Amino acid sequence: MPEKVTLVVFSGELDKVLAAFNIAVGAASSGMEVSMFFTFWGLNIIKKNEGPIRSRGIMKKMLNFMNRGGAKRLPLSKFNMFGLGKWMMVKLMKDAKTPSLGEMIELAAGMGVKFMACTTSMGMMGVSKEALIPQVNSYCGVATYLSEARDSKINLFI
Amino acid sequence: MPEKVTLVVFSGELDKVLAAFNIAVGAASSGMEVSMFFTFWGLNIIKKNEGPIRSRGIMKKMLNFMNRGGAKRLPLSKFNMFGLGKWMMVKLMKDAKTPSLGEMIELAAGMGVKFMACTTSMGMMGVSKEALIPQVNSYCGVATYLSEARDSKINLFI
Amino acid sequence: MPEKVTLVVFSGELDKVLAAFNIAVGAASSGMEVSMFFTFWGLNIIKKNEGPIRSRGIMKKMLNFMNRGGAKRLPLSKFNMFGLGKWMMVKLMKDAKTPSLGEMIELAAGMGVKFMACTTSMGMMGVSKEALIPQVNSYCGVATYLSEARDSKINLFI
Repeated sequence: MPEKVTLVVFSGELDKVLAAFNIAVGAASSGMEVSMFFTFWGLNIIKKNEGPIRSRGIMKKMLNFMNRGGAKRLPLSKFNMFGLGKWMMVKLMKDAKTPSLGEMIELAAGMGVKFMACTTSMGMMGVSKEALIPQVNSYCGVATYLSEARDSKINLFI
Repeated sequence: MPEKVTLVVFSGELDKVLAAFNIAVGAASSGMEVSMFFTFWGLNIIKKNEGPIRSRGIMKKMLNFMNRGGAKRLPLSKFNMFGLGKWMMVKLMKDAKTPSLGEMIELAAGMGVKFMACTTSMGMMGVSKEALIPQVNSYCGVATYLSEARDSKINLFI
Repeated sequence: MPEKVTLVVFSGELDKVLAAFNIAVGAASSGMEVSMFFTFWGLNIIKKNEGPIRSRGIMKKMLNFMNRGGAKRLPLSKFNMFGLGKWMMVKLMKDAKTPSLGEMIELAAGMGVKFMACTTSMGMMGVSKEALIPQVNSYCGVATYLSEARDSKINLFI
């Protein structure tokens, strides 16, 4: 039975998210079984890149407007500088021929990495299933996360 | 023997802290044995909600004034906007009937989650035992944390 | 065979980095085998304290100027206040007779903690081997990190 890796992806900041996907893709390509549990700001990663999400209630609308999400829109955790720092980072990644986050997501999904969306966060933040990318395999809560995590060799909170 | 989960709670930001308590309560309710090691900004979570902490030395006084702590006072890691974003988040949690952090702390303590306060951080930041909530079971250092962590199936740094 | 601990050190913020080194030194002194994998902002920790790094290309030059690094220059994750908060924290650490980060690095290296520098981050950010402190034992990618991590009892992402 292959060894397992389970990542909680809580952050929605490009730099941390890239680290998460590098570990996920690396582990999958060395034959490990990888699950990623996207929760809280991490939901932004698996939102579609299209427009803002429609949700009910003025505060959820506001939240989903400010916190629009989508792999192309994530800020950096440091030196974001209203997008300038992020633009630089994306440029440096291109120069180094590193895949973009969108490409990493495709790659991970293609290698069988399991994408789990946290339903508690979805409910609280007014994010529907339709707002999420089709690569998500499972909509679940902390109990399902824990059942993956307790069998994993590597558990990280990112 | 029940499987163990050990969480280092370093962050004092409401969104991360809620994630930590969701995992802790979820694990405890599925029969796992959970320890939380509160260190650095994480000490803020287990400070009493009352007034600022009295400590000796002008700098510790300043630190404990700015960094007052208590489960009701934690900021968000993003979109805090001087408390407005946090207010929105707390409102959304209420709408979704999610328990508040104060309730999560009670719940976790009631389910036998072990609360460990890092004495190194307490000493450095001028936080006395009296400033902490009574649910704390143990005041200890990194050696005690490690002895819990090395027997745990799930280890996270939050 | 000694139990292993593997830390991904992603953050370059003094408070988190000190937590990482406290765990590393604590684990090493209780006989565990510790590896630290420095990636992204974490590279700042293992940069030499001397001047800014020379790198090619205007953007890498800019990045290494803003993001100069070296154990003495890391900011705090909270209350940094243009260095004032950090100065306070360093003062409080001295008062508490806690070793400085520079001393922790020496201590960790002396106890056999393995320092791994992430070559992917180095390439992207224009950081050469010469810019890093001599305590670094290994320059490697995610595959090497994973091979350490899968044998470890404690895995953390900091």
